[in-house]
Amino acid sequence: MKKEKISKIKQLQDILSKKNIDVSIFLNFDENKKDKTVYYFSDVEPEFSCLIIPKKGNPKLIVAKLEEELTKKESKIRNVVLLEKDFFKQLSRIIGKNKKIGLNFKTVSLSEKKLLSKHLKKSKFFDVSNDITDLRIQKTDDEIDKIRKACKITDEIFSKIILNAKSFRNEKEIEELIENEAKKNGCSLAFSPIVGSGKNSSMPHYKDNNSEIKKGFCVIDFGVRYQGYNSDITRTIYFGTPSEKEKEEYYRLLGVQEEAIKKIKVGEDFKKIDKAVRKVLGDSFIHSLGHGLGIDVHERVSTDNKRSLLKDGTILTVEPGVYHTSKFGIRIEDDVLVTKRGNEILTKSSKKLIIIKIT
Amino acid sequence: MKKEKISKIKQLQDILSKKNIDVSIFLNFDENKKDKTVYYFSDVEPEFSCLIIPKKGNPKLIVAKLEEELTKKESKIRNVVLLEKDFFKQLSRIIGKNKKIGLNFKTVSLSEKKLLSKHLKKSKFFDVSNDITDLRIQKTDDEIDKIRKACKITDEIFSKIILNAKSFRNEKEIEELIENEAKKNGCSLAFSPIVGSGKNSSMPHYKDNNSEIKKGFCVIDFGVRYQGYNSDITRTIYFGTPSEKEKEEYYRLLGVQEEAIKKIKVGEDFKKIDKAVRKVLGDSFIHSLGHGLGIDVHERVSTDNKRSLLKDGTILTVEPGVYHTSKFGIRIEDDVLVTKRGNEILTKSSKKLIIIKIT
Repeated sequence: MKKEKISKIKQLQDILSKKNIDVSIFLNFDENKKDKTVYYFSDVEPEFSCLIIPKKGNPKLIVAKLEEELTKKESKIRNVVLLEKDFFKQLSRIIGKNKKIGLNFKTVSLSEKKLLSKHLKKSKFFDVSNDITDLRIQKTDDEIDKIRKACKITDEIFSKIILNAKSFRNEKEIEELIENEAKKNGCSLAFSPIVGSGKNSSMPHYKDNNSEIKKGFCVIDFGVRYQGYNSDITRTIYFGTPSEKEKEEYYRLLGVQEEAIKKIKVGEDFKKIDKAVRKVLGDSFIHSLGHGLGIDVHERVSTDNKRSLLKDGTILTVEPGVYHTSKFGIRIEDDVLVTKRGNEILTKSSKKLIIIKIT
Repeated sequence: MKKEKISKIKQLQDILSKKNIDVSIFLNFDENKKDKTVYYFSDVEPEFSCLIIPKKGNPKLIVAKLEEELTKKESKIRNVVLLEKDFFKQLSRIIGKNKKIGLNFKTVSLSEKKLLSKHLKKSKFFDVSNDITDLRIQKTDDEIDKIRKACKITDEIFSKIILNAKSFRNEKEIEELIENEAKKNGCSLAFSPIVGSGKNSSMPHYKDNNSEIKKGFCVIDFGVRYQGYNSDITRTIYFGTPSEKEKEEYYRLLGVQEEAIKKIKVGEDFKKIDKAVRKVLGDSFIHSLGHGLGIDVHERVSTDNKRSLLKDGTILTVEPGVYHTSKFGIRIEDDVLVTKRGNEILTKSSKKLIIIKIT
């Protein structure tokens, strides 16, 4: 979208220049602690890697020997350097002493910081995490295309679920259909799908998906990762015959969801929209209204205090829900692209209550 | 194994008492930064959670409302508390001021630390990451049983691969068999399987798995996660007819692997064994000899400087390999349980070179 002709790396370098930071370092040394920034700038995410982006000049990607061949094949960063035995010594040689260094404070651990301080002598460290967040919030056209495609595949999978709905006996079968179809389309899953039927639908993060399909609402929440970019959809369908009251509750939620989407606009405060929805739905709405979407399934936009103003090129989910513990839950979720020219709902599956008669 | 009758939580509390630390806190607020410690002690890993283990008394698990129902169902920690809007305020109310607080410095980010310091006034923070590592290195009988079972399933999957080997045309088909069989056995994958045939076998972390199966060595590296615990095996098979030289190289590596396993003993330094293997294999051996195995696929044992002494109850992989860039690679990996009574190789698949004739 925005600033399409200036690469993401150049945009970060402009920020570094403005803030008078010499170089930024992104570390990826722990399987449980990924800094997706490395992927964001390089298109690869080798284990044991470090991305160095200086204020000026070419970035370097340090990778372990066992990742070298693969990285050189696929990385957008051409300057691939081999990880040495003593990484911090190597880093200090590359960076030099007495520097102003940008770090992603949201991912760098206290242990890593200790080692950085010890080896990069007399250097000062600055938090660039919010700058990275701000960059990532505004998607490029290429990113939007990938998410649009992910959403399209997601819609197709949902159609197949509905087409086969009468045949399902267990939640697991729906999960398996999602997995198989994602794979057929060259995608992985964005996250572990949620298929909660009957009273399981009241748990927003239900992941067992291993009960018989019971009469009542069934929350189906899933997404795919296409070329590194995620989609995220929820539809709630009904097995059996809903009562009038159940139908009412469904359509009331749908009304709230559509109203919320209408309010979404560049410059609007998403926190306010979240509050308004919360006012209508009350205590049965137990999570936030949505979240940014991109190379992470949850990107820090949304109801976060300081990052809730919607920007041109943002993609976020809008997913109000109501939950009645041990009884049932309903959630309806779309992915919305926000632009100056208006919004686009990227997930296009029907939101009418789909009723699957049980015979 | 060891200290079976004292729970893991009690073991940590003993450490806290000894170090005069009032309470330890483990944070899980970021999908890209999991502190597996929460899972280790509670058997659940809710998103947006915080585990509080005081020096004395009952631990508390703080979880978001949307995780409450599920957590109460499955958590070993009975004291489940709801996350409040202002988490850090809540934490400061629970913990109090002026405390000595243990943190996992390997996972707490600089941003989190900033907020902790701001809200837990006058408190001092201490690194308990090595204590946690030391606890986790020594598996309990229950943990060993789970990993043993994971290894058994892994062996069965490998048998099926061999049984069907003649029918495979593409690496992807082997990957799919692994995925499907894991699922059938109630497991998820420990990691993205590696199936590299022909020259793809020279990339230790090859994950595309999307080429036609080519003549030559084929590295198959995979594992399953059974009830939270991982296995990790590699076998290298041969499609076509290997030359005498290729056979020699395979059996030479196997000899080195078996020799390394023989050296493994309680009290032995794994770093030394790694060094010895490196001496024999030279520059074509481009990763470490192995790693600890448990709720993480890579646990910090192994060739890490300070944690390389093998302890009673450790489970680790032994996986030397040789790689010739753009030509071929061979790797052989087993999971080994180290005990005072002797070792047990948990992965039992044959290590003879399996040759699949291509017709």
